[in-house]
Amino acid sequence: MQTKSNLLKKFRIILCRTSHPGNIGSSARALKTMGFSRLYLVKPNNFPSAEASSLASGADDVLRDAIVVESLEDALIGVNFTIGFTARKRELTQPHENIRLTATNILPVAEKNEVALLFGNEKNGLSNDEIKHCQKLSFIDANKDYSSLNLSQAVQIVCHEIRMMTDLYLHNDITKVIPAKYVSHNVLNSFFDHLESVLDQIGFLKKIQAERLMQRLRLLFNRSNLDKDEVNILRGILSEIQKKL
Amino acid sequence: MQTKSNLLKKFRIILCRTSHPGNIGSSARALKTMGFSRLYLVKPNNFPSAEASSLASGADDVLRDAIVVESLEDALIGVNFTIGFTARKRELTQPHENIRLTATNILPVAEKNEVALLFGNEKNGLSNDEIKHCQKLSFIDANKDYSSLNLSQAVQIVCHEIRMMTDLYLHNDITKVIPAKYVSHNVLNSFFDHLESVLDQIGFLKKIQAERLMQRLRLLFNRSNLDKDEVNILRGILSEIQKKL
Repeated sequence: MQTKSNLLKKFRIILCRTSHPGNIGSSARALKTMGFSRLYLVKPNNFPSAEASSLASGADDVLRDAIVVESLEDALIGVNFTIGFTARKRELTQPHENIRLTATNILPVAEKNEVALLFGNEKNGLSNDEIKHCQKLSFIDANKDYSSLNLSQAVQIVCHEIRMMTDLYLHNDITKVIPAKYVSHNVLNSFFDHLESVLDQIGFLKKIQAERLMQRLRLLFNRSNLDKDEVNILRGILSEIQKKL
Repeated sequence: MQTKSNLLKKFRIILCRTSHPGNIGSSARALKTMGFSRLYLVKPNNFPSAEASSLASGADDVLRDAIVVESLEDALIGVNFTIGFTARKRELTQPHENIRLTATNILPVAEKNEVALLFGNEKNGLSNDEIKHCQKLSFIDANKDYSSLNLSQAVQIVCHEIRMMTDLYLHNDITKVIPAKYVSHNVLNSFFDHLESVLDQIGFLKKIQAERLMQRLRLLFNRSNLDKDEVNILRGILSEIQKKL
């Protein structure tokens, strides 16, 4: 039988390019209070640091076990579903929904999939280059005139929302439709690289539109939550095209 | 028509005996991001302070307008319903419910009543003497092995939960049963003082049980959410008894 603790272990919290080490410490404390434990740090400005440890309070085990990496791709190895947190509305983008809706829908996915919760830099949030790895975007509803949540406060709310929903999810009696296992991030990313190179080879990518086109295609395929067989088929097609060139 | 902004203005956030000024600043920022604005500080250890202002970020207006008082009673002047946040289970106590349930139920009350959200000292939480002023106790579900939420994180979650519920509350079409206006805290408190003095005069209060007895009586009357007429009747009875002594 699935337990709350096991379900929460399927989530990793990824902080991208964090400027202030204190926010890493406060975030470690925040996620641990909500029963999460897995922290990834992409290019932190200053880590490890005394300030992070001090603010982590009793959550120093989370900091000790935190995985520090040089790129988001490295942090996403083994991940099947990535949710990015961003307040800004963006043009041409993934589904952007309230955290409560995200919390409601993510738990069946987490049964079979590894899920990443992605937070950007304190000042600028997630970059477009980080956003492109997300299957879904989520936001915390805030005061229109002052929406500047501290990073660790955002982590606290997101983890709280998901924790709250686990009880409802685990203890209801309705039939659960558990989605298939999605492909890992690196499989998907390699497919996009493959696709891009084929499009380039066939002359479809005009330089000025290339980035925007790839963004659209990523959105399209991200929406469909590909499984392994489907990726194999698509890559087979790409390879076949390349043979003809 | 009721608006989200007006409804949130019915709430005051009261921080009791806060030790670290940084937590006051972070709490000010937290409540402002969620659309709240009214902060009360009961006997803060160090305020105003540069650290509070620095951590408040753009919420310095909340700090500037914060009302600093010497006693909780002063902070509760004009309040009709008080909710205390505490993780500890206590013997013989008010209803103690999850913050989500509290958020669901408090909005109709806030239509006509002034509501206080009460947070204790960082280390020890709310004292029994503070708890006794609460009509309801509420908690944030946390990791059993590490439940130590930072004060401003608790403020953030509570304000977020209430904010989330306002949309559901304001935009549904069901008939709303809005409870009567409850009496102000000072009216209720004076009644309890009156009751206690009468019980003392008639020799009912044995010293060793007095505190516990008054606690039980407070619970009993708090449960019934007295209105003004009812308090007048009860105090009339008490005065009548005193005349006979």
